[in-house]
Amino acid sequence: MLQTAANSSNRPSRAAIAAATGLTRATVSALVDDLIAGRLLTEHDPAPRTGAGRPAAGLALNPEGPAGLGLEINVDYLAACVVSLTGEVRHRFVEHGDQRPLSPTAALEALDALATRARSAAEADGLTVAGAALAVPGLVAADGLVRVAPNLGWQDVEVPPLLPGLAGLPLVVDNEANLAALGELRAAPDGRTFLYVSGEVGIGAGIVLDGELFRGVRGWSGEIGHVTVFPDGRPCRCGANGCLEQYAGQEAMAADAPLAASALGIALSAVVNLLDIGTIVLGGAYAPELPRLQAGIEAELARRVLTAGLAPVSLRAATLGADAAMRGAADAVIQAVRDDPAAWLGR
Amino acid sequence: MLQTAANSSNRPSRAAIAAATGLTRATVSALVDDLIAGRLLTEHDPAPRTGAGRPAAGLALNPEGPAGLGLEINVDYLAACVVSLTGEVRHRFVEHGDQRPLSPTAALEALDALATRARSAAEADGLTVAGAALAVPGLVAADGLVRVAPNLGWQDVEVPPLLPGLAGLPLVVDNEANLAALGELRAAPDGRTFLYVSGEVGIGAGIVLDGELFRGVRGWSGEIGHVTVFPDGRPCRCGANGCLEQYAGQEAMAADAPLAASALGIALSAVVNLLDIGTIVLGGAYAPELPRLQAGIEAELARRVLTAGLAPVSLRAATLGADAAMRGAADAVIQAVRDDPAAWLGR
Repeated sequence: MLQTAANSSNRPSRAAIAAATGLTRATVSALVDDLIAGRLLTEHDPAPRTGAGRPAAGLALNPEGPAGLGLEINVDYLAACVVSLTGEVRHRFVEHGDQRPLSPTAALEALDALATRARSAAEADGLTVAGAALAVPGLVAADGLVRVAPNLGWQDVEVPPLLPGLAGLPLVVDNEANLAALGELRAAPDGRTFLYVSGEVGIGAGIVLDGELFRGVRGWSGEIGHVTVFPDGRPCRCGANGCLEQYAGQEAMAADAPLAASALGIALSAVVNLLDIGTIVLGGAYAPELPRLQAGIEAELARRVLTAGLAPVSLRAATLGADAAMRGAADAVIQAVRDDPAAWLGR
Repeated sequence: MLQTAANSSNRPSRAAIAAATGLTRATVSALVDDLIAGRLLTEHDPAPRTGAGRPAAGLALNPEGPAGLGLEINVDYLAACVVSLTGEVRHRFVEHGDQRPLSPTAALEALDALATRARSAAEADGLTVAGAALAVPGLVAADGLVRVAPNLGWQDVEVPPLLPGLAGLPLVVDNEANLAALGELRAAPDGRTFLYVSGEVGIGAGIVLDGELFRGVRGWSGEIGHVTVFPDGRPCRCGANGCLEQYAGQEAMAADAPLAASALGIALSAVVNLLDIGTIVLGGAYAPELPRLQAGIEAELARRVLTAGLAPVSLRAATLGADAAMRGAADAVIQAVRDDPAAWLGR
């Protein structure tokens, strides 16, 4: 209801909501008063106008209301951002640095400091951080335990105790490509079925089918970085040979962009042959590189997808660019508030 | 209702159905009388027993009721079967012979003759064929048009006019791996999420997610036969190089089983990495060959699936063996009758 009634650009009035829903004006006013008191809605005075009757005040989401803290740890950077209830990025911090030599404790200590800075900046603005979500480049179990993050060298890391600065705040830990795919779904809601591919040092994917993230039987879908492209090829950190990551990961891409494009095209052709997905969204380090990669990827798709002649596959850069994972993380927090405002009001 | 009430082994009585549903006995009896008149149910006298009271007669699906005609055209055989409402195969015809030199018209003329024999055999038994379904190794559009069947050399074939012997009978045309996967889902309903792989001269797959066939955006999912396993490998009929079909299709498998197993393992690893599916069912020509293939496939899965150490992947032969596609086709017909008996009664 909150989204439908209050997130439209035309700022409905209390009277309009009562008319649209069939609730009494008294009931609507009581609900709206609660949402305003909880800082979820604001009521704007209308612009003065000429003519008969008193114009009604309009309701909108409160940009100063509960905010989401999005966090990301990746192989070569840490990041944090604060996103308002209206989806605006209010603060953004990125700290470059190779995380591979660090223990999980040391890496998360640095992230905790960054998260604390972001939270303080939000609070200095008068925002209340409603929760945090952390994007991790690895396999995250349903309970938030990071089972394996091969490129970080992590195994079975329980994150919350290592982020003491966030104590008391709801914290979700999820795979970075999954969070980025969900962020992309909300940012560009015209595409309900797509494959999101996140190119970092490692490569992950989020599979969105008819508006829902497909997580797989055990929550570990989307490991496109370990799809074999050259069976006897380069050894991978995972123990196999010829994984996509070894040809189209960020470092390999910098060394040989045409090979990265071709390898990515081979793996994406497998996805399209298997799932008949018509839209591929390239994010992370791929987003700014798309002009250099596109022709090479499309040549492989045209050659290797059985239905290429019948049904086109469209390729585009992520709307949220390289920030998709941390934006998706922050977005997951504010989406949870928007989906269930009563839980926020009753906290 | 029909399935719940009448397909259990304990043959509920009219009184038991009334008690379980809360409908009156008169209502239940009227419905049951309709279903018996339409040959969907039979009512069995109970075994004589000692003790007080008159035992009630029990209801069951009618094995002599409407039957399904399952048809299959594949590269090296034609097949037809008649399956009763209770799922029993009553007639089965297979005609071996290479279909590739034939035009669609000639191939379907031979299938029409086989279908007519099967239908006559059913009618000689007193069965009424409720409909037919045809399994085709190719891309079938939602309206039943066969867009491409690469291994048959078919393009844009409209099947119904070429099967005049089935005129007047509802006819569904679908991809053979999809029909086989649906048949397998019903035959072994414990597994709700699995990948079904059909090994013939070509190779297809049906992806079953949580009890539903995943058809893809345009209905063309499951083209595992054209997943690249060796990017610069053998040329394929589809125009690409190194497709799985060229290494693990029926003819390639006969020539080099270890290579077939390894190629299949590489492609299946891609599926598991992408979809996190825990069960793989091998059908068609793979089913009887599984003992020769299993170790080779499992070695690749263990090496190439990122989560192999966390979550096992189980591999099994199709319950319906090499007949899965035509059985699945017949089953689709009787399932439609069982799902909507009113449509059958009102035809």
